[in-house]
Amino acid sequence: MDEKFPAHIMNQKKILNDPVYGFVDLPYGILFDLIEHPYFQRLRRIKQTSLTHYVYPGALHTRFHHAIGALHLMQQAIEVLRSKGTVISEDEAEGACIAILLHDIGHGPFSHTLEHTLIRVTHEELSLLFMERLNEIFPGKLSLAMQIFRGRYPKKFLTQLVSGQLDMDRMDYLNRDSFFTGVHEGVIGYDRIIKMLAVRDDELVVEEKGIYSIEKFLIARRLMYWQVYLHKTVLSAEQMLIVALRRAKALVQEGAQLPASKALGFFLHHEPNQADFVRNRDSLLEHFAALDDYDVTSALKEWMDNEDKLLAFLSRSLIDRHLFRLEFRHQPFEAAYVAALRQRILDWSGLAEWALPYLLLEGRESNAAYTTSKDEIRILHKSGQVMPMSQSTDYDLQSREVTKYFLCYPKAVFPKESGNNETNP
Amino acid sequence: MDEKFPAHIMNQKKILNDPVYGFVDLPYGILFDLIEHPYFQRLRRIKQTSLTHYVYPGALHTRFHHAIGALHLMQQAIEVLRSKGTVISEDEAEGACIAILLHDIGHGPFSHTLEHTLIRVTHEELSLLFMERLNEIFPGKLSLAMQIFRGRYPKKFLTQLVSGQLDMDRMDYLNRDSFFTGVHEGVIGYDRIIKMLAVRDDELVVEEKGIYSIEKFLIARRLMYWQVYLHKTVLSAEQMLIVALRRAKALVQEGAQLPASKALGFFLHHEPNQADFVRNRDSLLEHFAALDDYDVTSALKEWMDNEDKLLAFLSRSLIDRHLFRLEFRHQPFEAAYVAALRQRILDWSGLAEWALPYLLLEGRESNAAYTTSKDEIRILHKSGQVMPMSQSTDYDLQSREVTKYFLCYPKAVFPKESGNNETNP
Amino acid sequence: MDEKFPAHIMNQKKILNDPVYGFVDLPYGILFDLIEHPYFQRLRRIKQTSLTHYVYPGALHTRFHHAIGALHLMQQAIEVLRSKGTVISEDEAEGACIAILLHDIGHGPFSHTLEHTLIRVTHEELSLLFMERLNEIFPGKLSLAMQIFRGRYPKKFLTQLVSGQLDMDRMDYLNRDSFFTGVHEGVIGYDRIIKMLAVRDDELVVEEKGIYSIEKFLIARRLMYWQVYLHKTVLSAEQMLIVALRRAKALVQEGAQLPASKALGFFLHHEPNQADFVRNRDSLLEHFAALDDYDVTSALKEWMDNEDKLLAFLSRSLIDRHLFRLEFRHQPFEAAYVAALRQRILDWSGLAEWALPYLLLEGRESNAAYTTSKDEIRILHKSGQVMPMSQSTDYDLQSREVTKYFLCYPKAVFPKESGNNETNP
Amino acid sequence: MDEKFPAHIMNQKKILNDPVYGFVDLPYGILFDLIEHPYFQRLRRIKQTSLTHYVYPGALHTRFHHAIGALHLMQQAIEVLRSKGTVISEDEAEGACIAILLHDIGHGPFSHTLEHTLIRVTHEELSLLFMERLNEIFPGKLSLAMQIFRGRYPKKFLTQLVSGQLDMDRMDYLNRDSFFTGVHEGVIGYDRIIKMLAVRDDELVVEEKGIYSIEKFLIARRLMYWQVYLHKTVLSAEQMLIVALRRAKALVQEGAQLPASKALGFFLHHEPNQADFVRNRDSLLEHFAALDDYDVTSALKEWMDNEDKLLAFLSRSLIDRHLFRLEFRHQPFEAAYVAALRQRILDWSGLAEWALPYLLLEGRESNAAYTTSKDEIRILHKSGQVMPMSQSTDYDLQSREVTKYFLCYPKAVFPKESGNNETNP
Repeated sequence: MDEKFPAHIMNQKKILNDPVYGFVDLPYGILFDLIEHPYFQRLRRIKQTSLTHYVYPGALHTRFHHAIGALHLMQQAIEVLRSKGTVISEDEAEGACIAILLHDIGHGPFSHTLEHTLIRVTHEELSLLFMERLNEIFPGKLSLAMQIFRGRYPKKFLTQLVSGQLDMDRMDYLNRDSFFTGVHEGVIGYDRIIKMLAVRDDELVVEEKGIYSIEKFLIARRLMYWQVYLHKTVLSAEQMLIVALRRAKALVQEGAQLPASKALGFFLHHEPNQADFVRNRDSLLEHFAALDDYDVTSALKEWMDNEDKLLAFLSRSLIDRHLFRLEFRHQPFEAAYVAALRQRILDWSGLAEWALPYLLLEGRESNAAYTTSKDEIRILHKSGQVMPMSQSTDYDLQSREVTKYFLCYPKAVFPKESGNNETNP
Repeated sequence: MDEKFPAHIMNQKKILNDPVYGFVDLPYGILFDLIEHPYFQRLRRIKQTSLTHYVYPGALHTRFHHAIGALHLMQQAIEVLRSKGTVISEDEAEGACIAILLHDIGHGPFSHTLEHTLIRVTHEELSLLFMERLNEIFPGKLSLAMQIFRGRYPKKFLTQLVSGQLDMDRMDYLNRDSFFTGVHEGVIGYDRIIKMLAVRDDELVVEEKGIYSIEKFLIARRLMYWQVYLHKTVLSAEQMLIVALRRAKALVQEGAQLPASKALGFFLHHEPNQADFVRNRDSLLEHFAALDDYDVTSALKEWMDNEDKLLAFLSRSLIDRHLFRLEFRHQPFEAAYVAALRQRILDWSGLAEWALPYLLLEGRESNAAYTTSKDEIRILHKSGQVMPMSQSTDYDLQSREVTKYFLCYPKAVFPKESGNNETNP
Repeated sequence: MDEKFPAHIMNQKKILNDPVYGFVDLPYGILFDLIEHPYFQRLRRIKQTSLTHYVYPGALHTRFHHAIGALHLMQQAIEVLRSKGTVISEDEAEGACIAILLHDIGHGPFSHTLEHTLIRVTHEELSLLFMERLNEIFPGKLSLAMQIFRGRYPKKFLTQLVSGQLDMDRMDYLNRDSFFTGVHEGVIGYDRIIKMLAVRDDELVVEEKGIYSIEKFLIARRLMYWQVYLHKTVLSAEQMLIVALRRAKALVQEGAQLPASKALGFFLHHEPNQADFVRNRDSLLEHFAALDDYDVTSALKEWMDNEDKLLAFLSRSLIDRHLFRLEFRHQPFEAAYVAALRQRILDWSGLAEWALPYLLLEGRESNAAYTTSKDEIRILHKSGQVMPMSQSTDYDLQSREVTKYFLCYPKAVFPKESGNNETNP
Repeated sequence: MDEKFPAHIMNQKKILNDPVYGFVDLPYGILFDLIEHPYFQRLRRIKQTSLTHYVYPGALHTRFHHAIGALHLMQQAIEVLRSKGTVISEDEAEGACIAILLHDIGHGPFSHTLEHTLIRVTHEELSLLFMERLNEIFPGKLSLAMQIFRGRYPKKFLTQLVSGQLDMDRMDYLNRDSFFTGVHEGVIGYDRIIKMLAVRDDELVVEEKGIYSIEKFLIARRLMYWQVYLHKTVLSAEQMLIVALRRAKALVQEGAQLPASKALGFFLHHEPNQADFVRNRDSLLEHFAALDDYDVTSALKEWMDNEDKLLAFLSRSLIDRHLFRLEFRHQPFEAAYVAALRQRILDWSGLAEWALPYLLLEGRESNAAYTTSKDEIRILHKSGQVMPMSQSTDYDLQSREVTKYFLCYPKAVFPKESGNNETNP
């Protein structure tokens, strides 16, 4: 029996240059077939971090690249666990690899940003539907992977490697997003963390001497949230994108003819929910699989001169990167402040109340702080004892979860000095 | 007098995260205004290396990022030259910075790939027309930059920093392309080379002790040509893109209605040459400025089901990444081999002779070897003497220029084993 | 007036390859003369991190390299502050540069490890004495630097750049130690932090948007303490070195003739305190300046076969890297445990009570947690307000200071399993 | 059967932080025992690149670190070859690992610099004697390794991995020396080269698509020679070290009492050749194993005030880094020039003819150009054919071998301007 993959795979594997990891081995067989499938190739046209590249111009990396990277780390994790005596059969290894490869296949254009704007299904549910479909195309070959993905496989640690506090998804995206944004401070010691993984009672644990790396990982994640994912300017652009699409859908509902690709046109006219997807799985998946960042961006370009002035304004502002101002507060905004702002927007735009949801965007964001309430990271102490992370470190993990409230509106409304930050061009 | 930029610029500069250089300072003033202009923001939607990302999935970086990077290096080069006593006025520094920032602004979708397919003008000529136009929008502020760009400014070294054997364009693109492809072997010692720059008789020279870095630079460039820019699979994809567009234009000429964005539609129907651009500059530039990678990729997606089977085949193959096989030879292909191939293609496709130019793509590529015939790199020896590089190194620069002939055709035509290389998925 | 340094310096600066920063410019003039002086060249023979290389074999970097690195960062910090309008004269810039260059010149062999074993003076006091002496050799040229070093210069921020929460010393050593140990998780965003520095009321502040980088810096420092500086095996080696030297001094006091270099011989026979150094400054500095890591290591090699079995045992163990076992506890060790251990050591060694301080090493270590009690990092908020870090972040800085108690003794005494950690070879 | 190492090794392996490779796994068993042996630990005190750190202050890495790094690469190479179907038994793998681990164990202080000054044996011969001795200590466990090391094992490729055009020794030292000097241009694509290795007819070959990496490797090696190993200032320091030791030996022969460690003292009084080492192997190896960089540097420090003015001058110059001027020429120096220089040295020093060999150091250096005459790199073409590198590349490998002649003498002799290079401090 071979350690990693059956021999016929080992001998024919392909090598891919990944600026993050150097070289990535792509095993042949079902994994390779899945990568070659148009459903997966489509991820080449979906950026991992939506409009983050408006602030960090290098952040153009895709879901395709991320999924391959996570697969690479999964192979390493399996090798480490096996070297420590954990039994993982070939089929289980392949299952875990398929599960991580396809974990994000249900993402639509601009990933999370438009997740609930164009359709009313989560990307996890769509990922599972895609897997079901692929399990018919490659008959039965994804069954074990789906069990792992759904958390229904007895060896719980395999699911935890796909989705958990220290899964290969996070390991890769923190690394990759740090790399391509150039925010080096988000870099994590993924290699060390993986080397410290072990299994006790079918659950993933981290050896005690990896504890500082885990702390670093948690703080790096926190930093990436505020410095990248929830960066003011990124958030502003993404909020604008959401309302631009909402405006387009509203116009379509009113009977307007908007230029759009076939794929986008379908979703401007229909808004399928999960039940619809289950009912008409194959047909809706085909429509959805045709949709990516290109449809949306190209539509915005066409809409820049639309006769609906609001849609045109939102589209042109996004394409030319004239972004709304975004204000953050630690408390909800005072009603009077908001009211005054609404009035100014009405005056400035010459539009009526109905336009306010498109021009004054309100909301709040929280960072995903580590929480001790559930699914804690487990530390394997030298004594052999397994204890939760919160009882294993001197570092206070229970840092308050931080919520920030925001308001977002056109700069022209209220042209005060916007400060001198690194985000504009 | 200030060293770098007028005080009002220094004090307000913006900082940009660049994964390649860490931090990049963006000076305010005209440079910042140019970056904010839609003509320049458009470069965010044009990838630097066309379809290279089909082989190196990280290579999604844009002309926007490259131009900013080259500007960053230009600032460094100016600082180095000034520190060695070369007088460069503020206006000259700004001019050189504008010239490098805008040197590629004339690039269209997929950069070089479609340069002569959609329009019959070089990107350099278009860059100059854009500069002319911007010099009207920002009255007179680009005049000096244009003199430098055209090589008409007395201080010849300023032009050489923009366009020459060791210009900031090459320094940045070699670095950046290496970085994003992950082909670390293409990395050059740009920082050392820049530190070694000096000026003698108004021309750029390199201090003698930088000579090994120059050799390394030349070999790295050669490596990047064959391993990246002219990689078999990249070349195949780019050739396919060219013929797909040619097919679309042919169909339009025959009167077909093809879905396309307004911008792309215009260029499918018109093929302006330089004279046209000079005559109708403002109007044609507007059309051209509306065009980018998104128009082309979105069109391919729409054409995947076109009734013209050939266009549909080419478009779907590109979108799903089913690329043609490409064969390289050091000599022209034998006529008999080509003839046999033509016959097989006719048999396989069921199409007539007219289809061959779309299914059998022939051509040749040469790498840009260093040549001693003109514009040699000049070395400043410790003795004070300036000598051409070819007389300053023991390394044989006159390596034969290499030409490779290629044939490219659908794999299905002739399904032999395609080898096991790192390029497919 | 020039921005950085007088023109005659700018034009002649030297370039040094630093694997950490790429290139480092060395200005000519007094700074260069100081670097060339034997007092400074001596730092080439003093490792920055004592015996850390016994665990991290790359950590052989010296005080020399660190001081040059800190000088490099000081030049950057001064440039940043000037670009934001803070006035720093040429003399002040030079003074701050001299102060940081020489801040560690008083370090003896193995830096902190032997600081109170061979002499009874702190390295800061010795640094000041060296500066006094050099201020005579280069008459008056160090006066301003000494004011800054002592905190007696009105522009308090200059002192803070040399010694404070965010000084260039820490910036460099965290970076450099991370780099050479390979503990990449200790890497800090020094470049970003420096870019965010500003001055308000003559004190150093950090712009608000640098706050996440500061958090990362604090956590990285904490990680480096436990993972590197206070690593069990490093601590064990350093404790052994201390007692080996103590044993040698005891033997010398008893009249033994020990082989040693002239420089080390002097300090085995004398143990000057600060008063002695002030009284006989020039003579004692000459003795001290002759002493470095080489004297101590070479002495250990000679003592490996010494007739004093204890000295021989300690020396050979260190040279062959047979290190004592070190146990860490969060509470003081129980008296009974220690008593039992003492008895075993007496039995095992066949020596009497007097030998215990050489074979059972007790002590405790605390990490330098960030404390809000004094000298807090000050954050410059966008509002213009300056607030202490502890009130500017959601992250709990007041993490408990951690104290660990240790016991250290020969493995042979009590040969239990020592676990499987990464530290032995 | 296990892939890499017997299970008991896999399960207990240690991890070492290597700044060059990230993490390095150290297998237990005989390899670990060898690393723990004082003969190997001694390599911690021998710098890999002698006095290179006088120019590149980071270059303090040791033979210990290099040998571990080469072992790491050997493990990778074996894994790659096995994955391509080459049969390598566990014993053979262990043998190759031992051979690479110990390939440099015969190096003395300052590696190559003093190789023929203190003793008259090459380091390869000494490595073999050390292996013989260790094969007695660990009875028979090194027999296969020695066959491989000597080139007497049938599977020739194992020897080629230890010593050949593309051995793991070169792979590691080019990488490591680039890393620690900070001369990033010397970085090679070791990971890609290793991935491209294969075996045909029991010999090592490189797959065709690795050819550009090989070219890059050859040019990087050339660059490292001239920019690092044969750097003027490095060469000057090393030449001075050689004559300082020669002077010391001459004085000892004349009966002088020179302070020196026991180990160095022995070799100042004796100059054993290979025959002596074979005859009195165990005793001479003990003496030799006690000798390292520390003995020599400490001796120079003691000799700085020696009554022999010449020895004192050479020693103090080295310790304080007042290095001789070195002149390079492409042709032999003219007799008249040398004669004039000799006269000036006599005048300046006040010494007689006998002193000239210590003050006027003449010699020549060649870089190790790739040669096609023997032991060529073999390329495995896609056709299956194996052809020598020189027939597989368009790059002219036969670049002239370059010889440079040098003269080296105290700067004070002839105090002309020494230029402004990056080497002095």
